[in-house]
Amino acid sequence: MHGYTENKDDYLKRLRRIEGQVRGIAKMVEDDKYCIDILTQVSAATKALQSVALGLLEEHMGGCVVDAARAGGAEADAKVKEASEAIARLVRS
Amino acid sequence: MHGYTENKDDYLKRLRRIEGQVRGIAKMVEDDKYCIDILTQVSAATKALQSVALGLLEEHMGGCVVDAARAGGAEADAKVKEASEAIARLVRS
Amino acid sequence: MHGYTENKDDYLKRLRRIEGQVRGIAKMVEDDKYCIDILTQVSAATKALQSVALGLLEEHMGGCVVDAARAGGAEADAKVKEASEAIARLVRS
Amino acid sequence: MHGYTENKDDYLKRLRRIEGQVRGIAKMVEDDKYCIDILTQVSAATKALQSVALGLLEEHMGGCVVDAARAGGAEADAKVKEASEAIARLVRS
Repeated sequence: MHGYTENKDDYLKRLRRIEGQVRGIAKMVEDDKYCIDILTQVSAATKALQSVALGLLEEHMGGCVVDAARAGGAEADAKVKEASEAIARLVRS
Repeated sequence: MHGYTENKDDYLKRLRRIEGQVRGIAKMVEDDKYCIDILTQVSAATKALQSVALGLLEEHMGGCVVDAARAGGAEADAKVKEASEAIARLVRS
Repeated sequence: MHGYTENKDDYLKRLRRIEGQVRGIAKMVEDDKYCIDILTQVSAATKALQSVALGLLEEHMGGCVVDAARAGGAEADAKVKEASEAIARLVRS
Repeated sequence: MHGYTENKDDYLKRLRRIEGQVRGIAKMVEDDKYCIDILTQVSAATKALQSVALGLLEEHMGGCVVDAARAGGAEADAKVKEASEAIARLVRS
């Protein structure tokens, strides 16, 4: 059972919207729309994806990481390390 | 006629792939996949979107901005300003 | 007692180096160095700062957040929320 | 003669301030300040550095890139390519 389960519908709705944004960007390229307008849409889709990621990450920390911390020992360290690596990928992407 | 026209097929292919990645992320949320694995996919999709944006931007500069620079005057300044604002949105997204 | 205390000397060394990089960038501007070379140094200093931030964050999660998770209750939630907000600021900066 | 020359004093002032911010972050680490407060300062310094980079880049495009575009030929292409690579480093840092 994962931490994001209760907000699943919200995440799914946001991801469907992002999927639609990306399809819209492809349509703009297909129709030779003005480059700067396309870039504006790409920035918006990127921000929306990052926002989903930050939400999932917060729930992961409040769920899996906190549970592992309570269980203690090597499992807690492993979860902190794993979450830190995911954060680094987000910061660098 | 926009600068990215000659690579249009390549951009369309990349955008279709990103659309598929986002659909895959929604499926992972739907199936309660492990949060960290979802985040890895979100980082990959974000990077792919940014890479499309950087490609479009380079072609825009080599096309519209260079043309405007040759035409000169206020048009050149306006294009440089517009491109700079698009770059700032990318850097901050 | 904070989580980063044992690596304090390492962080201090890295921050001194970044301080020197920023001073070097000012010197490049002062000496009218080529803009692209200055931008390369700015990117390097930015990456070095982010790397310090990611290190501090990992230690914070392994220290304060894990301790709060063990203490449990509202304190655990507050620490997770606080860390998530710090992560969001890093991802967006 | 570089494009940023006329705003040199402004850039120098901003870079001195960032240098001071980084020194302040080192002091916070030295004094065992709370990790989240340190991270807030790191995010602020990173944003300030990026803002300097975006300013320099805009001036570079309005100066060197526009001049090269007017001169035309391989020089214009080379300057666009060089600027695009600098932008990619900023977006990815």
